[in-house]
Amino acid sequence: MPETVFEVDTEAPPDEQPDPIVNRWHPDVPPVASIDPGEKVRIECMDWTGGQVNNDDSANDIRDMALDPNHHLSGPFEVTGAEPGDILIVDILDLGAFPDHEWGFNAIFDKENGGGFLTDHFPEARKSIWELDGVIASSRHIDDVRFPGCAHPGILGTAPSHELLEEWNERERALIERGPDAETAVNHETREEQPPLALPPESNDVLLGGMDDDDAEEAAEEAARTIPPRENAGNCDIKNLGRGSRVYLPVFVDGANFITGDLHFSQGDGEITFCGAIEMAGWVDLKVDVIKDGMEKMGTDYAMFKPGYMDPDFSDYVVFEGYSVDEDGKQHYKNANVGMRRACLDAIDYMTNFGYSEEQAYMILSTAPVESRIAGIVDLPNTCVTVSLPEEIFDIDINPDILADGDATGDRGGVAKTS
Amino acid sequence: MPETVFEVDTEAPPDEQPDPIVNRWHPDVPPVASIDPGEKVRIECMDWTGGQVNNDDSANDIRDMALDPNHHLSGPFEVTGAEPGDILIVDILDLGAFPDHEWGFNAIFDKENGGGFLTDHFPEARKSIWELDGVIASSRHIDDVRFPGCAHPGILGTAPSHELLEEWNERERALIERGPDAETAVNHETREEQPPLALPPESNDVLLGGMDDDDAEEAAEEAARTIPPRENAGNCDIKNLGRGSRVYLPVFVDGANFITGDLHFSQGDGEITFCGAIEMAGWVDLKVDVIKDGMEKMGTDYAMFKPGYMDPDFSDYVVFEGYSVDEDGKQHYKNANVGMRRACLDAIDYMTNFGYSEEQAYMILSTAPVESRIAGIVDLPNTCVTVSLPEEIFDIDINPDILADGDATGDRGGVAKTS
Amino acid sequence: MPETVFEVDTEAPPDEQPDPIVNRWHPDVPPVASIDPGEKVRIECMDWTGGQVNNDDSANDIRDMALDPNHHLSGPFEVTGAEPGDILIVDILDLGAFPDHEWGFNAIFDKENGGGFLTDHFPEARKSIWELDGVIASSRHIDDVRFPGCAHPGILGTAPSHELLEEWNERERALIERGPDAETAVNHETREEQPPLALPPESNDVLLGGMDDDDAEEAAEEAARTIPPRENAGNCDIKNLGRGSRVYLPVFVDGANFITGDLHFSQGDGEITFCGAIEMAGWVDLKVDVIKDGMEKMGTDYAMFKPGYMDPDFSDYVVFEGYSVDEDGKQHYKNANVGMRRACLDAIDYMTNFGYSEEQAYMILSTAPVESRIAGIVDLPNTCVTVSLPEEIFDIDINPDILADGDATGDRGGVAKTS
Amino acid sequence: MPETVFEVDTEAPPDEQPDPIVNRWHPDVPPVASIDPGEKVRIECMDWTGGQVNNDDSANDIRDMALDPNHHLSGPFEVTGAEPGDILIVDILDLGAFPDHEWGFNAIFDKENGGGFLTDHFPEARKSIWELDGVIASSRHIDDVRFPGCAHPGILGTAPSHELLEEWNERERALIERGPDAETAVNHETREEQPPLALPPESNDVLLGGMDDDDAEEAAEEAARTIPPRENAGNCDIKNLGRGSRVYLPVFVDGANFITGDLHFSQGDGEITFCGAIEMAGWVDLKVDVIKDGMEKMGTDYAMFKPGYMDPDFSDYVVFEGYSVDEDGKQHYKNANVGMRRACLDAIDYMTNFGYSEEQAYMILSTAPVESRIAGIVDLPNTCVTVSLPEEIFDIDINPDILADGDATGDRGGVAKTS
Repeated sequence: MPETVFEVDTEAPPDEQPDPIVNRWHPDVPPVASIDPGEKVRIECMDWTGGQVNNDDSANDIRDMALDPNHHLSGPFEVTGAEPGDILIVDILDLGAFPDHEWGFNAIFDKENGGGFLTDHFPEARKSIWELDGVIASSRHIDDVRFPGCAHPGILGTAPSHELLEEWNERERALIERGPDAETAVNHETREEQPPLALPPESNDVLLGGMDDDDAEEAAEEAARTIPPRENAGNCDIKNLGRGSRVYLPVFVDGANFITGDLHFSQGDGEITFCGAIEMAGWVDLKVDVIKDGMEKMGTDYAMFKPGYMDPDFSDYVVFEGYSVDEDGKQHYKNANVGMRRACLDAIDYMTNFGYSEEQAYMILSTAPVESRIAGIVDLPNTCVTVSLPEEIFDIDINPDILADGDATGDRGGVAKTS
Repeated sequence: MPETVFEVDTEAPPDEQPDPIVNRWHPDVPPVASIDPGEKVRIECMDWTGGQVNNDDSANDIRDMALDPNHHLSGPFEVTGAEPGDILIVDILDLGAFPDHEWGFNAIFDKENGGGFLTDHFPEARKSIWELDGVIASSRHIDDVRFPGCAHPGILGTAPSHELLEEWNERERALIERGPDAETAVNHETREEQPPLALPPESNDVLLGGMDDDDAEEAAEEAARTIPPRENAGNCDIKNLGRGSRVYLPVFVDGANFITGDLHFSQGDGEITFCGAIEMAGWVDLKVDVIKDGMEKMGTDYAMFKPGYMDPDFSDYVVFEGYSVDEDGKQHYKNANVGMRRACLDAIDYMTNFGYSEEQAYMILSTAPVESRIAGIVDLPNTCVTVSLPEEIFDIDINPDILADGDATGDRGGVAKTS
Repeated sequence: MPETVFEVDTEAPPDEQPDPIVNRWHPDVPPVASIDPGEKVRIECMDWTGGQVNNDDSANDIRDMALDPNHHLSGPFEVTGAEPGDILIVDILDLGAFPDHEWGFNAIFDKENGGGFLTDHFPEARKSIWELDGVIASSRHIDDVRFPGCAHPGILGTAPSHELLEEWNERERALIERGPDAETAVNHETREEQPPLALPPESNDVLLGGMDDDDAEEAAEEAARTIPPRENAGNCDIKNLGRGSRVYLPVFVDGANFITGDLHFSQGDGEITFCGAIEMAGWVDLKVDVIKDGMEKMGTDYAMFKPGYMDPDFSDYVVFEGYSVDEDGKQHYKNANVGMRRACLDAIDYMTNFGYSEEQAYMILSTAPVESRIAGIVDLPNTCVTVSLPEEIFDIDINPDILADGDATGDRGGVAKTS
Repeated sequence: MPETVFEVDTEAPPDEQPDPIVNRWHPDVPPVASIDPGEKVRIECMDWTGGQVNNDDSANDIRDMALDPNHHLSGPFEVTGAEPGDILIVDILDLGAFPDHEWGFNAIFDKENGGGFLTDHFPEARKSIWELDGVIASSRHIDDVRFPGCAHPGILGTAPSHELLEEWNERERALIERGPDAETAVNHETREEQPPLALPPESNDVLLGGMDDDDAEEAAEEAARTIPPRENAGNCDIKNLGRGSRVYLPVFVDGANFITGDLHFSQGDGEITFCGAIEMAGWVDLKVDVIKDGMEKMGTDYAMFKPGYMDPDFSDYVVFEGYSVDEDGKQHYKNANVGMRRACLDAIDYMTNFGYSEEQAYMILSTAPVESRIAGIVDLPNTCVTVSLPEEIFDIDINPDILADGDATGDRGGVAKTS
């Protein structure tokens, strides 16, 4: 086992961890450890909410969650010799839940506190707890579903430079300032009330690792939220970034100062419930290396990766086809988000034929290895998005021909609600 | 070989074909043939442009293309006994190019005439001709690329009812009437000039199969364009709808009256150049069946399908990560289209490291079995889209580690330009 | 479509074909056509029996088949400039059944006339006819089975030199002369009567293409039978040698003089019924090239290939485990053949749980894309062989858990018998 | 983490372990723990040699290995309520190396002490040590090879009944008594000296778990060796029995009394070096269940399994074709073992083109996810076996076309030798 360079305690709150949690991007957060090129390390991670979710049958914790302090991450880690202009290579060797903590959660946020891709349809907080049996996930809240996950870190990124951070803040601020417009109404699920357009720096609940208090107070005013993916990769939430993957990241500061966390046991493309994948606390083993002057040599200033060869290799899919007309019949202009909405809603509707509740189906789409592809993006005004649901994840037969032959309903349990 | 129920002549223009071409959706187009449930048929198809593109080294034909008459399709075909409320099953048995016409084309439309997903970057007409050797495609205009295609029909759909047609026209007209707004500017490639928002019924160059002239003139005023996919599936351009797939389509009129065409030898997710896949004239063998009262029995009123098991099974990918910040640095709000733009632009940039021109790279993304996934759609404001480029399609090694080790450039030929 | 360099007529007998059939390996058979490196050609092929099998419901044709004249092959084809020591590259571009002849057959030979891997258990002639719908096979003799095939040529090989032919004849003669011994009894299915050990040159029913009669009479005495695969590849019967594959063959005579045929629509590993795969008449499109001095440059004097990427990609298998104890309980010594027998017999037994007859199950193993692996070959005395049966080929659910839950039997029709 | 029901200490010898090791099959070995149906457990395992191999650069430990005490296994485990006639279900949830022991070994046994599939060619002891980085294996003794393993237990089986044990002993004794014959000479690698034909009960170095000494002494006379796979599955060495697999095992004694161990990080089909896979000490998490009267309900009295969906999914292979002529040119009769020999020897020869020594290549075939299929088993006298080598495991390009273009040699290090 590689040396553990970051420890967490799943029994302790975020601000009492053995190593200091970080929940913002900022160039000046001091590295918590230094790693040599070629070295392998183990990094422990809190779940992304910092332990706010319990393994129980109530969704109250989801309803009442504090969102400002998320994500609770591990790092930064300095890589010896890395300089701006280099490319950092990170091999994802393995990851898993803690031995005494082999469960994860998926949840639907309340529309007033977090929301999600389909929050208009699912406005109330709900939760499912997933049992993690080695590589197999199942949930007492969703019957007859059982699948191997492609575990991956939701977040892996390098620290931004001061210049890059400023660029982020400017462009996101500009979006907020442009204000609610047709674009927002179109793209977002909330058509009555105005959702947040972006998350500006928020000094509430900031954790900046080992940065001293005075510096931290100042830095908190400009440190970037960790929700969006950006030039440094960050919160990409890519379901295929699993064991055996090799990631190439641009380096913006001396030492690269990369951060990781937000571990997922499994995720469907889109992570549509927002809370989100099968979220877990756990550990990840990484090996790092540096390509000196990599940006110039490789002609790239963006993140890229090569997936491992260990994704679940399903082959039986039922595929749903969405296009840019929303569920109220309104035509949108080449909008892939609306296309995905429609395909997801059809997939949810389809699963109800087999006895699943809509909430269960929504969570299945968000957690299982579901493929969501932009099939056609030029056929104006209707971008076509496909959502492919693997039949292998069900213990029952969900082939469409079954429906043609007769009744397929059953009792599939129910997800956790609020009280 | 199944009986041929629709013949085309690749030497003749669209209006002099053995069987009458159709290029609009309308409930009253009379069926050209009748098929019994359980029957297999062969349907011949023009390429989508109706033969406007030549196998030569000039892109003039692309620049000057008449767009109004597209797509040139085969049908409608009546399925005996099918009624509204049923589900039509179509098994895609096989498809291919004509024996004396084993080539296809991909093209970049001029910005003023058609455009494409990245038309700001590629404003001029370009063309590549692809040689189709059995299941293998290669192009004299793009060296060192060679791959098996997942051939599929770009268009397969049932006729709309009058009510459904009216619904389409209304919602698309409403979009046009809402006019150019922020949404458009955001989503579309053309930020200076206003692109078409939708394509309203266009009576120019209408072909309505065997409909008599008076009826046709009237119908042309309301018949829907075939560009967008809609409730009847239609122009889905789904690269995985290949040999062995089974499609489930809702039936809206007596006889179902399905239409097919727009055959693709291979396509990348998104079909980003708009012209589009490796486009070809050819034939498709289908077997049809009907699930009586299928919509009620199956609880569905939408199209869905099960892919065959014959897609190319590549396993080595370089993956690019896009997010909702456009190439001018402007932040958009959870916009998957912008995410895909960025990922595509990075992929194009990456391929230039190996000697490909940007135009060649753009065409590779549009034609080879490239995977484009909506990885994360909730991490506001940045939707993450991944574009996965298979290494196996290249005769050269395009692994990123090659770049780190040294020079990889080479001469890869060039695409056809205008004169 | 590439130029057709070899034509066959499925209505005519082997000796009245448009181009002369060849059914033996001999260096002096004159080439029927000449192909340039880089050229693509279409080659038509009889089925391997030369049309002895009818599309009907009687197995009499199988029982009475003339075996000496098999296989009925197409060639030889001279490749311009190829010389001994070169490597011949053959790209398998595409292949298929003839449009007016879209069916194939699988059969169990009578124990007295051909036999097969499990002839002790299946001593009587049986036949199934398979309908070939594009890429999909199904049989009126075996219900509820339907799968895409990985079509491939069973035979593809270069002509042997005189020296190599002599080596073949000597070593095979030596086996025959060693006579029946323990080895034979162990390896072969027939334990009471002596099966042929090898097939020596047989001048009966010899077809040597365009060779003149006097030469042919002499050559027939030494020309090698086409049943076994040898240094020139030949009758490899490799189910993965499908569309998109690239084959590397050693060249032993000027012009390489390669021969092909024995087309299979689909085959299970082992081709266990001997007659064998889904056998068909049809055409194959090939592209050839030559690596000058390839044997030395590549350090190889053996055949090898790279499969295409178009095999059916199933993922749900039930796997049976055989070891070197035969069904009479006799222990054999690290014998993979016996291991495969046991695994096949278990797989057949398993399928009978679902209503299939043993004969149907035997034919399924021989025709569908079944994987047979030598799992462990060192664990004396029991070599372990696995036979993996894909669940996707069945319209019914054959998961073992179904059996635990209740009854799964049904009526699955029956294969053709003798009268 | 499931409760650990069997502990091992990698620092202690086999007879001083926390839980008693078992190295023979016998119905009367008392269970070391009891597990309820539906329960999950963690089982720790020694490596199969019981710790005889060191992580160093000398093969002396291989040369001098004591073979009689192998395999060193964990169990038996009683499953509550299981009775003869039932089927035991075992879900393989996860497995791995111990955190402080993340390495494995592969070795070539000396011809006089163990041998292997190709011992005539590789008569001297050799060793490679593999570093296990999460799911990735690499070896300091074989450069430029790096791959994800499909980790699996080499051994998993139920206890035989007294009757079954007697049957095993009788049939294996009969083989030994038949003595060396043509069969042996043909099948085995050692043609000069007589190898063991089977391994009869051997009372030397017997470990029978917690059985009391008097009983153990008696049982040792009849307890079966663990080398061969048999009706109870046992030492199947199936490379695909990985994470997520579900195994069905016949139950022969009350409680089933299953045993497991011989953990492999990765293995090639055949496990040809005999020592064998990447062998490791470690842990495996299992979940067990019982199908009452499963043998009758399911109509099976044999072991079978369903693989998980987590095997490495490579798609680029170079395939070698062997047939039943040995490397001395002797023709054998439909002998799959000889076919595999030839294909393995060709694959080894091929790898030497790229700078690998023959010993390195032999070890690569034995450890990496190499596919070995019985392609054709009826084409007398030459059974065709294919060995498919995945290109993805190499950091260098081993495509055959590379060889045609020029030199590919390099220095790839060397394996550990004896001193």
